[in-house]
Amino acid sequence: MAARSETGRAGSGASDVYEVDWREELDGDRLREECGIFGIHNHPDAAAIVALGLHALQHRGQEAAGIVSFDGRVFHSERRMGLVGDSFSDLATIERLKGRAAIGHVRYSTTGETILRNVQPLFAELESGGLAVAHNGNLTNGLLLRRQLVRDGAICQSTSDTEAILHLVARSRHVRMVDRLMDALRQIEGGYALVMLTNKKLIGARDPLGIRPLVLGELDGRYILASESCALDIIGARFVRDIDNGEMVVISDDGVESIRFAKAQPMRPCIFEYIYFARPDSVVNGKNVYAVRKSIGVELAKEAPAGADIVVPVPDSGVPAALGFAQEAGLPFEMGIIRNHYVGRTFIQPTQSVRELGVRMKHSANRAAIEGKRIVLVDDSLVRGTTSMKIVRMMREAGAREVHFRIASPPITHPDFYGIDTPEKEKLLAATHDLEGMRRVIGADSLAFLSIGGLYRAMGEESRNAASPQFTDHCFTGDYPTPLTDLAIASPRQMAILAEAD
Amino acid sequence: MAARSETGRAGSGASDVYEVDWREELDGDRLREECGIFGIHNHPDAAAIVALGLHALQHRGQEAAGIVSFDGRVFHSERRMGLVGDSFSDLATIERLKGRAAIGHVRYSTTGETILRNVQPLFAELESGGLAVAHNGNLTNGLLLRRQLVRDGAICQSTSDTEAILHLVARSRHVRMVDRLMDALRQIEGGYALVMLTNKKLIGARDPLGIRPLVLGELDGRYILASESCALDIIGARFVRDIDNGEMVVISDDGVESIRFAKAQPMRPCIFEYIYFARPDSVVNGKNVYAVRKSIGVELAKEAPAGADIVVPVPDSGVPAALGFAQEAGLPFEMGIIRNHYVGRTFIQPTQSVRELGVRMKHSANRAAIEGKRIVLVDDSLVRGTTSMKIVRMMREAGAREVHFRIASPPITHPDFYGIDTPEKEKLLAATHDLEGMRRVIGADSLAFLSIGGLYRAMGEESRNAASPQFTDHCFTGDYPTPLTDLAIASPRQMAILAEAD
Amino acid sequence: MAARSETGRAGSGASDVYEVDWREELDGDRLREECGIFGIHNHPDAAAIVALGLHALQHRGQEAAGIVSFDGRVFHSERRMGLVGDSFSDLATIERLKGRAAIGHVRYSTTGETILRNVQPLFAELESGGLAVAHNGNLTNGLLLRRQLVRDGAICQSTSDTEAILHLVARSRHVRMVDRLMDALRQIEGGYALVMLTNKKLIGARDPLGIRPLVLGELDGRYILASESCALDIIGARFVRDIDNGEMVVISDDGVESIRFAKAQPMRPCIFEYIYFARPDSVVNGKNVYAVRKSIGVELAKEAPAGADIVVPVPDSGVPAALGFAQEAGLPFEMGIIRNHYVGRTFIQPTQSVRELGVRMKHSANRAAIEGKRIVLVDDSLVRGTTSMKIVRMMREAGAREVHFRIASPPITHPDFYGIDTPEKEKLLAATHDLEGMRRVIGADSLAFLSIGGLYRAMGEESRNAASPQFTDHCFTGDYPTPLTDLAIASPRQMAILAEAD
Amino acid sequence: MAARSETGRAGSGASDVYEVDWREELDGDRLREECGIFGIHNHPDAAAIVALGLHALQHRGQEAAGIVSFDGRVFHSERRMGLVGDSFSDLATIERLKGRAAIGHVRYSTTGETILRNVQPLFAELESGGLAVAHNGNLTNGLLLRRQLVRDGAICQSTSDTEAILHLVARSRHVRMVDRLMDALRQIEGGYALVMLTNKKLIGARDPLGIRPLVLGELDGRYILASESCALDIIGARFVRDIDNGEMVVISDDGVESIRFAKAQPMRPCIFEYIYFARPDSVVNGKNVYAVRKSIGVELAKEAPAGADIVVPVPDSGVPAALGFAQEAGLPFEMGIIRNHYVGRTFIQPTQSVRELGVRMKHSANRAAIEGKRIVLVDDSLVRGTTSMKIVRMMREAGAREVHFRIASPPITHPDFYGIDTPEKEKLLAATHDLEGMRRVIGADSLAFLSIGGLYRAMGEESRNAASPQFTDHCFTGDYPTPLTDLAIASPRQMAILAEAD
Repeated sequence: MAARSETGRAGSGASDVYEVDWREELDGDRLREECGIFGIHNHPDAAAIVALGLHALQHRGQEAAGIVSFDGRVFHSERRMGLVGDSFSDLATIERLKGRAAIGHVRYSTTGETILRNVQPLFAELESGGLAVAHNGNLTNGLLLRRQLVRDGAICQSTSDTEAILHLVARSRHVRMVDRLMDALRQIEGGYALVMLTNKKLIGARDPLGIRPLVLGELDGRYILASESCALDIIGARFVRDIDNGEMVVISDDGVESIRFAKAQPMRPCIFEYIYFARPDSVVNGKNVYAVRKSIGVELAKEAPAGADIVVPVPDSGVPAALGFAQEAGLPFEMGIIRNHYVGRTFIQPTQSVRELGVRMKHSANRAAIEGKRIVLVDDSLVRGTTSMKIVRMMREAGAREVHFRIASPPITHPDFYGIDTPEKEKLLAATHDLEGMRRVIGADSLAFLSIGGLYRAMGEESRNAASPQFTDHCFTGDYPTPLTDLAIASPRQMAILAEAD
Repeated sequence: MAARSETGRAGSGASDVYEVDWREELDGDRLREECGIFGIHNHPDAAAIVALGLHALQHRGQEAAGIVSFDGRVFHSERRMGLVGDSFSDLATIERLKGRAAIGHVRYSTTGETILRNVQPLFAELESGGLAVAHNGNLTNGLLLRRQLVRDGAICQSTSDTEAILHLVARSRHVRMVDRLMDALRQIEGGYALVMLTNKKLIGARDPLGIRPLVLGELDGRYILASESCALDIIGARFVRDIDNGEMVVISDDGVESIRFAKAQPMRPCIFEYIYFARPDSVVNGKNVYAVRKSIGVELAKEAPAGADIVVPVPDSGVPAALGFAQEAGLPFEMGIIRNHYVGRTFIQPTQSVRELGVRMKHSANRAAIEGKRIVLVDDSLVRGTTSMKIVRMMREAGAREVHFRIASPPITHPDFYGIDTPEKEKLLAATHDLEGMRRVIGADSLAFLSIGGLYRAMGEESRNAASPQFTDHCFTGDYPTPLTDLAIASPRQMAILAEAD
Repeated sequence: MAARSETGRAGSGASDVYEVDWREELDGDRLREECGIFGIHNHPDAAAIVALGLHALQHRGQEAAGIVSFDGRVFHSERRMGLVGDSFSDLATIERLKGRAAIGHVRYSTTGETILRNVQPLFAELESGGLAVAHNGNLTNGLLLRRQLVRDGAICQSTSDTEAILHLVARSRHVRMVDRLMDALRQIEGGYALVMLTNKKLIGARDPLGIRPLVLGELDGRYILASESCALDIIGARFVRDIDNGEMVVISDDGVESIRFAKAQPMRPCIFEYIYFARPDSVVNGKNVYAVRKSIGVELAKEAPAGADIVVPVPDSGVPAALGFAQEAGLPFEMGIIRNHYVGRTFIQPTQSVRELGVRMKHSANRAAIEGKRIVLVDDSLVRGTTSMKIVRMMREAGAREVHFRIASPPITHPDFYGIDTPEKEKLLAATHDLEGMRRVIGADSLAFLSIGGLYRAMGEESRNAASPQFTDHCFTGDYPTPLTDLAIASPRQMAILAEAD
Repeated sequence: MAARSETGRAGSGASDVYEVDWREELDGDRLREECGIFGIHNHPDAAAIVALGLHALQHRGQEAAGIVSFDGRVFHSERRMGLVGDSFSDLATIERLKGRAAIGHVRYSTTGETILRNVQPLFAELESGGLAVAHNGNLTNGLLLRRQLVRDGAICQSTSDTEAILHLVARSRHVRMVDRLMDALRQIEGGYALVMLTNKKLIGARDPLGIRPLVLGELDGRYILASESCALDIIGARFVRDIDNGEMVVISDDGVESIRFAKAQPMRPCIFEYIYFARPDSVVNGKNVYAVRKSIGVELAKEAPAGADIVVPVPDSGVPAALGFAQEAGLPFEMGIIRNHYVGRTFIQPTQSVRELGVRMKHSANRAAIEGKRIVLVDDSLVRGTTSMKIVRMMREAGAREVHFRIASPPITHPDFYGIDTPEKEKLLAATHDLEGMRRVIGADSLAFLSIGGLYRAMGEESRNAASPQFTDHCFTGDYPTPLTDLAIASPRQMAILAEAD
């Protein structure tokens, strides 16, 4: 099947390369994205509200943003590369997005080949009317579905899983849109949250395990769907509840209807939302992210104390855990690293070489605060290790006497396939090195990770239930919550490597 | 079904409106376009050759241009708003279009809603491999097909007939691409010429009546397909032959294979190509356009002589007929109207109000040549009459003593549905006025059209064969060569008006 | 001193190279431009009128256009690369150009280094108020003036002579703007027409010899200045008179005041305006350009008849002379060459290599009209000869039996320094080859130029007055009407070559 | 004289409005800007180094950035709207900036009228060679100088003080560039740091009082000039020393030459650099900014303790003072406010209405951290009070029981005229309200500012020396360190208001 790349371009032009290689599509970083979604029903300023909601979700994706509205007769769509604040702050754009219902999407920076046609929400005119879809997550059988669809004569314009969902809905033999959607959802596997807009309804759905988050909110009697509760706060909306795993909610003038499309089972949300992705002020599945991160710091200080003078966070994501660590350890908390906010997140930079430059561009040592000190450095996680290595070196060059590195999560040994961009297993430092090996690579005086048990304790659990884990935690455990269908088909080698690891 | 409009926009953004109204799609001018197509097989500079060929076909469409190439592994596509010379003259663009086979398309200015995604060639990855399609013409059952396709779960991204063809090919149950194409062609009705590119082949096809033109050329042993022979001349290629009506030619490393996909019948090409569309130096279906136009002028001078001092063409399209008229009448030929070439063709300006401005912007009187003279004014055709009215007035203001208007074609009484943008019947001056009425509207001292008999004589025929006309001439006769399927479904009112007229 | 180049660029950016080389500035083609200017006083739609006037003058410059208006309090300016019709056709742009007085400028394509900051009209706030200047022509002492100005502490932002004029006005010790302008005009040498706008007045000026054209028009009692009368016709304005050589006209609410800033002497307008530059329908210094060109054809047919079957113009500029030739010779006039109007003029293409490509892009043989014929080919002038060579070859390839080339002007042996882009002397074919040599280069069966006597006869003169020539004709005669001050300073080598030639 | 505005615009166009009003120019916010400058001499990657340096200085200006390089023969310039990381991260741009010496500038967002031509560095070709200038600060006699320059025939293209400096250098009667610069510097008044590039030298200068900062660095033997030391750290350069007040340093292949252009006097740097502008990790005039801010927090906790449960900073600028406060007060430090980094700084947003929106866009309450708590809120300063008001309200809505607002600087009662964008006196909350009035406006339970004495103690001084203050602190004291020449001329009303205040 076809992977395509299209370079963004100023002026009215489009440049496409139509690649014909299944492998690249899977092995690349390209299809694995973290995104944010938002929708509102029956509000006079629907598009403006969506723009504000997306702005609050901007940490989930900075590459592109889109909004689709429905004005009772016609769907309107605006999709742009870049930040919400840049693309959707002018009145003219918002005014073109007429109507009382709208959904939106922010998209994360993938490997440089994002093309405007992949920017969501996607839209299709089906026989039963228009359907716009915004999607956060990743299907583990998306390629298989696309292959089947093409075999059946479908023409795919994008490389996204989202388009596969649209095709499934378009091809469903059911008459009612809700039945078509159920039909489609039952064919897909993976982790996803969807916000959809039809001629009449705003619809949300969350995968059978609730891997990706989705919440229901309410503003003056109008219902809202959003990836995180912080997107409700920005507009003063009320948090109603998390969407349940395997639940579809259908919002219309008659209110909110809840439909289960998957059999009941315990929720198993992605634990990485707490560690890194979600905004600290969000409440995800009933837990405040900031509080969880501070608890993680407390657990980490208990598990791996360090003889040091000060605690220094790797800003910004390491700050809450560092505060928890400092309070538990009774050490002063100091801003020993200054972050330049005029660049994006390291974790989000697309290529390895840019990542390396990124660190230099993004963090600098606050020499006056750390010179001559023994420091505990707290970061949220350790992926390839390249950033950590540079930060340790930077601390030493700025005069730190000792650098004790503390990671506020367990070692990442397995890649993700549910919407988080992670490198292949071979490039994960913890997958190829033991603790002492990692310490040497990073150059710290000591290195410690939070244990998996500590992580579950910080989450408020007594311990991990190995038979039925409370969270999706495969990055740390290799315990994938769904079959990896595409991977088995398209990359037996990677599949074997993962199997070995177990 | 869905009509969509998307505003072109500088920068990396896209703005869509998804309209949901069948009527507009048909009643508007939007789907009726004249275009130019070109393709070459197995040439090291395939894309550059296509760009030159499209440049020679620029008179067939100035709104947008696109090229798709295949490099043996991957398809490359560049599509742009604007002229070929502006979009495809830089080396970088051409170099991105790698490969030894390429096809291209120039698109005509429709009613302002052209969107980049409608710019051709269109491309799809099918199970049997990639397929790019460039299309000149219009399907008379395109909307019906799209309706059926959507009912069957197809997702349409554009409003063009071309996409319907792609879907038909994608859904064909045949295995070989050529069989799939045949399958698709047998389902479509109307006037069309197609140039297509697959992983291995360059394919051309012309509708069963040969309404739209398509020629085969050859350059150093490599085969070329083009709308007109002038596109062969620009690169010094040899004209081989016209593609036959109902013929598909399949060009591969093995040479040219000819396949008939429709039953044999006499060709019936569009006579308007000779009157207005084709470039004077092209040879269309064996006839040189310039020579035909001069003959038309000769016939016109015989049928409708005028007592005058000079013959003045409405430039540029009226020049050859005026030369023929002047030579036959023994009158001096003078450039009494100067055309400003920095604007587009009147016939091609989209809206009525712009058309009115257009005349003023485009033509000016050469007072010194016409002051005090009795002039014969020769124009190629008369559509709404607004341009003619303005030109007559301009001639009088510049001092012409008498203005005798001669039209180098019969009165246009019926709209076209095969790829030419014509107004609705009610807006055609000749459909609503008799000759004297038209003369009064235009303000000329005398007005005459070429007779249908004269037109056929100028074409080298003895007379029009009413039982089986030699040309598609419905604009003058109402004798449509195919059923008007979509019109019957979507606009019974227009259908009734056309029926009345017969 | 500094020459600067700035690449045009989409988006809000600017890229400059600040060159430091006097020579390049003079030796390059860069400072030698043909342009069009227009201004109107006291009209409610001033900017829209200027846009229409510039559109009619578009043949004088296609590279860039600009308009400055004054609304009684503030000056507004819009300057753009590209055609007037593209840049100034949207309402928003015109509406930003508020006010009842406005001037505009179209600029010709120089050697690729045009930068937005060089696009005219230029504007400066002087102590006495704002001054906007639009300039057609070239100063022969512009570099010397700039050198002196920089020595005196002036900061030059552009490379144009126009800025030097602004500086001279700014530095004048006079109080009244008109006196300052006189002061400046008395310091400059060369050929120029200026249209200027102050807080209160619209001012025009023409060089002491009247080399470059400028006319006064009137529309409903409001005065207009324009390079050519065709810019009056487009808006239905009345031609009042040519501005006199050495005259400044000051248009205010009190009417038109005429001031002489140079001593009286016979006018000596540039003869090239008649041969090539001006539009055929313009009346320049009392002579209709189309009529002059036809007379040139008549004289040419008398001086250099040819045994041939048809007369074929090199379109478009060769058409009137070819018509004159055909009528005088009693031969049929045929459009044997078709011009593709979607590219610019050959004479106007910047580089030699693009010029060579240009011919192929622009002209094609109308084989049916010329096959087997002996043809007379009529072109307006012969510069480098590269175009002519290609056209002759094209005619032969299309089957012409004989090609007799007739040039509707004398041989060009000397470059221009008054606003026309000509190559250096060494690159002018007639400067380096005798007639037979040129014939061989071009490959024609015969070649003939109009004699200088014939040219003056076509202009209505009995003969050229060698003591005081009626026209500026140095390109044919080497008789430069002013000192070449800059050339003597900056390029003694070129100066010597020109001197030799005399 | 003239103020001009030019709207940034996609595509190759420019749109100017030439305003003619002295008042607006001064009374508006427009000329008062905070910027960052950087230069390097004799480095093979000069432009890339400058880009990195500017990136580190991005907090000093996000609106536009520019770099000028000199390659030994020609100056190259690239100037863009937007962030350094967006504009100067592509290789092609950097590669166009050839040469071993380069300077750069980042510019702060003024009132929406920034135009590309105002983006620095500015460049002029003078008689003695090219000169590029990057400027941080503001002249208090800039308008007077511009008025005199225009009277003397200068043509100003921009509204910036920097251009006035260029004109002064251009007009100097001295021969050597250094003497010309001295000549110019002696005529200007105000606060400024300049980095300049000539054909041979990199030159820096700091105003006679050292109001604006400038440091000298060194990288592998090559010298660097930068606004702050953090721009040295990003590239691993060594801090050499602060440039002295009234000092000009001339860097050439011969090393660094120091020249005094103003009489010796005690340095009096702007105290606001420590409070808000400089990056925490910078060392400004020998003092680490982070350490100063923590000391400020300590002093504030001593002067104005509060009975509270937690200390919450207004991020990011309030963080160090809040840490100091928390440590001194023995209270937990909590991130009770989450900042969305995908928008710019509040203090930097141009209009009041955007500012109000800004707060909502930028800060959100971390409810879980503050609900039910008595909180001390620490912010760096209080200007109009609108932001503070919104934050207090936000805290209460998130459940804070008590909100005690502590400002880490004294009340701002006077506007700045040395390069900081401050509102007019009437719009400064502290200029129009007493403490209790401010508390009521803001809605806090208690409000306290740092005393001027406390501020000086935090700076390491025993007390403010009223006779010769150690810092430029007029915003708090009304004690302006230079005459306000322009203000006296152009806005006597504002001048009187300021005088009253004393």
